[in-house]
Amino acid sequence: MIESHVKYEEQYEEKYKEHWDKVLATLNEGDVDKFRPVYLELHPHDQAVFFIEQSEENRLHIYSFLSPDEIAEVMINIELEDIQPYFTEMDPRYASMVLGEMPADDAVDILNQMDKEQVVSFLTIMDKEAAEEIKQLLHYEEKTAGSIMTTEYVAILKSQTVTQAMQHLKKEAPEAETIYYLYVLDDDKRLVGVASLRDLIVADDDTLIGDIISEKIVAVSVAKDQEEVAQMIRNYDFLALPVVDFQNHLLGIITVDDILDVMEEEASDDYSKLAGITETDRPNDNAFSAAKKRLPWLIILLFMGMFTASLIGQFEATLDQVAILAIFIPLIAGMAGNSGTQALAVAVRGLATGDYEHIGKTKLILREAATGIITGTTCGIVIAVVIFLWKGDLYLGLLVGASIMGSLIVATIAGSLVPIIMDRFKIDPAIASGPFITTINDIISVLIYFGLATTFMGYLV
Amino acid sequence: MIESHVKYEEQYEEKYKEHWDKVLATLNEGDVDKFRPVYLELHPHDQAVFFIEQSEENRLHIYSFLSPDEIAEVMINIELEDIQPYFTEMDPRYASMVLGEMPADDAVDILNQMDKEQVVSFLTIMDKEAAEEIKQLLHYEEKTAGSIMTTEYVAILKSQTVTQAMQHLKKEAPEAETIYYLYVLDDDKRLVGVASLRDLIVADDDTLIGDIISEKIVAVSVAKDQEEVAQMIRNYDFLALPVVDFQNHLLGIITVDDILDVMEEEASDDYSKLAGITETDRPNDNAFSAAKKRLPWLIILLFMGMFTASLIGQFEATLDQVAILAIFIPLIAGMAGNSGTQALAVAVRGLATGDYEHIGKTKLILREAATGIITGTTCGIVIAVVIFLWKGDLYLGLLVGASIMGSLIVATIAGSLVPIIMDRFKIDPAIASGPFITTINDIISVLIYFGLATTFMGYLV
Repeated sequence: MIESHVKYEEQYEEKYKEHWDKVLATLNEGDVDKFRPVYLELHPHDQAVFFIEQSEENRLHIYSFLSPDEIAEVMINIELEDIQPYFTEMDPRYASMVLGEMPADDAVDILNQMDKEQVVSFLTIMDKEAAEEIKQLLHYEEKTAGSIMTTEYVAILKSQTVTQAMQHLKKEAPEAETIYYLYVLDDDKRLVGVASLRDLIVADDDTLIGDIISEKIVAVSVAKDQEEVAQMIRNYDFLALPVVDFQNHLLGIITVDDILDVMEEEASDDYSKLAGITETDRPNDNAFSAAKKRLPWLIILLFMGMFTASLIGQFEATLDQVAILAIFIPLIAGMAGNSGTQALAVAVRGLATGDYEHIGKTKLILREAATGIITGTTCGIVIAVVIFLWKGDLYLGLLVGASIMGSLIVATIAGSLVPIIMDRFKIDPAIASGPFITTINDIISVLIYFGLATTFMGYLV
Repeated sequence: MIESHVKYEEQYEEKYKEHWDKVLATLNEGDVDKFRPVYLELHPHDQAVFFIEQSEENRLHIYSFLSPDEIAEVMINIELEDIQPYFTEMDPRYASMVLGEMPADDAVDILNQMDKEQVVSFLTIMDKEAAEEIKQLLHYEEKTAGSIMTTEYVAILKSQTVTQAMQHLKKEAPEAETIYYLYVLDDDKRLVGVASLRDLIVADDDTLIGDIISEKIVAVSVAKDQEEVAQMIRNYDFLALPVVDFQNHLLGIITVDDILDVMEEEASDDYSKLAGITETDRPNDNAFSAAKKRLPWLIILLFMGMFTASLIGQFEATLDQVAILAIFIPLIAGMAGNSGTQALAVAVRGLATGDYEHIGKTKLILREAATGIITGTTCGIVIAVVIFLWKGDLYLGLLVGASIMGSLIVATIAGSLVPIIMDRFKIDPAIASGPFITTINDIISVLIYFGLATTFMGYLV
């Protein structure tokens, strides 16, 4: 069964590759009539993958073979960071038509990456209606609900019947980003209700919209952080969420497909920060821009490491007397660093997914303290026994064991405390992942280790 | 404007809290007729949050106040890890009715957490039809397409008209998990086409389904990894994806709301592994189970740290002569560890999001090597200058600088190479995040540092 299954997938991939080669062949022939049907038969996502792989010369052919709205479909499926060069190589008039054909929220994301002059020139030559829609969205801050919403929703009236609403929907469907939610507005454009298409389908034809809409509307304010919007959509299982201003005027909607991208982006972001990369590094960045993103943290770490080194330097007299102490430094600092990172990861992830909303933060910190005591004691005993058996030195074993125990307890508490404090001061707790925790833990562990060693020196020499 | 906005949110939250208190009051009164309307007015997600906060006594009241299908709605909104105790405290007959009312995929997830005996007893007293559906899903492996799919989809025929299909849809709508895609099957239950509800709405009433369906079906095989399914839904912007066996029989569908949970789960999982936690730690685990999840890595690290310590021990003679060497050990090991983790994070994330599919892996490794040379050289020069200025010792500066440079280059290459190799051998590359990389980098940096120091000893004393 598994073999047949693999075979099925292989056959599928082979067929796909064949089609791909056909598209490439027609493009190289330069025959527009042969190229168009085979290319457009691909899913837009695959169209985009094909497009990216081409040389500039081939891309210029593709522009001339496709209409602006066909290229717009391709552009929607390209990662935002890679898209700008394509708009620069297009004829400006063609490029502005492409932008005009894209959903307004996607066009805004692209324009936000260009310099102001370019934006103004595109908006000037663009179709007036599209330009207006884009201008409305352009001034929302990045990573807020406003920046990811679209204005292409379907609005209906309370006084319409289901049949009338369905007719209206039929007309609006080709333009709308989603047709699966319909928004009911009052005369002042205030949001008063929501109906799902499912509600309409199930209802009788002459039912009034007012009778089937839900007035328990869950909406987000336009300034809300995109990560919180993602949490709401996930928690409430919505396909779309309305965005309102402070007077409850409907400004736009956020659809679940945009949320998938937000979640991917936020997860990559948190992950990168835990690894000490300030901005998300992308596989097709070149080495210089990758190094530029990693160096800030490495340099900070370098100076913090120098600080730790000078701290150890204070104990040079102790080290001179008992050189063997040095060999356990990386072990103790490493263990503290790692248990701190474990605690931090739990706290940061919990804050990101909103798991703490209904569980107390004090409870978490107490739990982390208890966890630190358990892990610290266990590791401390293990290492003491191992060193005693290995070196035959009971006091050295006790010293290293006690240091590990103390370091782990303090590091675990610090690891959960720091992100929670940062969150309270409205600083992104993921940032704490980096230099802050590592340094605190290095300092703590070195102080505990050499403090104990210096105090009990008599037993060691 | 911002102030008014905050005010609006505060008002909203106040209203919400008022309602919450009302629900609590009616529950404490024990008056079913007062409780039901206010409780059911909450969104199911909020019903679940309220439910979780109650004492067992209160929960038993809630069970007696609500019907099985009402409680089923609540259960769907509780995190899977927390749900089992509730089913154990319910009357078994009531519990099996609740399971029967849940979407089959959710019921299966819950049953997968119980022991076999319990599962059999639930399935025996359950409604026969529901039990059959659940049994079909029960044998799929965890984290595959089969384990997250549901069998509640809407199927139509090629020969139906749009009007007939809409009537059929109307009947099926209350039961189906999504009504926004309709699946066209042949007589043998093979999937031959897909139509979106949008297509139906836009089409004329008497159009034949066969004329509007898309035959370019994107389907996944039942054994596909859930992370890959998530990537496909994200790339193709689908609201649902059909799941087929190797003969293209339709087995079920996966909807986007389940994918949101998969993405959250996979992101938390990768994040935890980077921090060295084997299983995702949850905020409401107690200290013992949290410690249990963290200890494996800490203990592994402890022994690997002992190995590094014994490696440094080989250079005790060098250390005895130049004790000051010891103070830079944590700095060098720390820097190597961190640049390795940076490179690893980029590689693991890139593999997880599928960004490498069309970019070569060799290209990535070459880029990482170049990045390592840039960051290593920069950090090496900085540290050499700082140590020279601080200690006035040119040779010590050169030694530490050269060690940092060498360690960073090797660590960066190792950080990208290890996950790519693991991926080739079908091992989850996120696992490499932990002990493997850290130890490799500790060993590399210690060997480079003390190797250089021992060789050039003459310049240091």
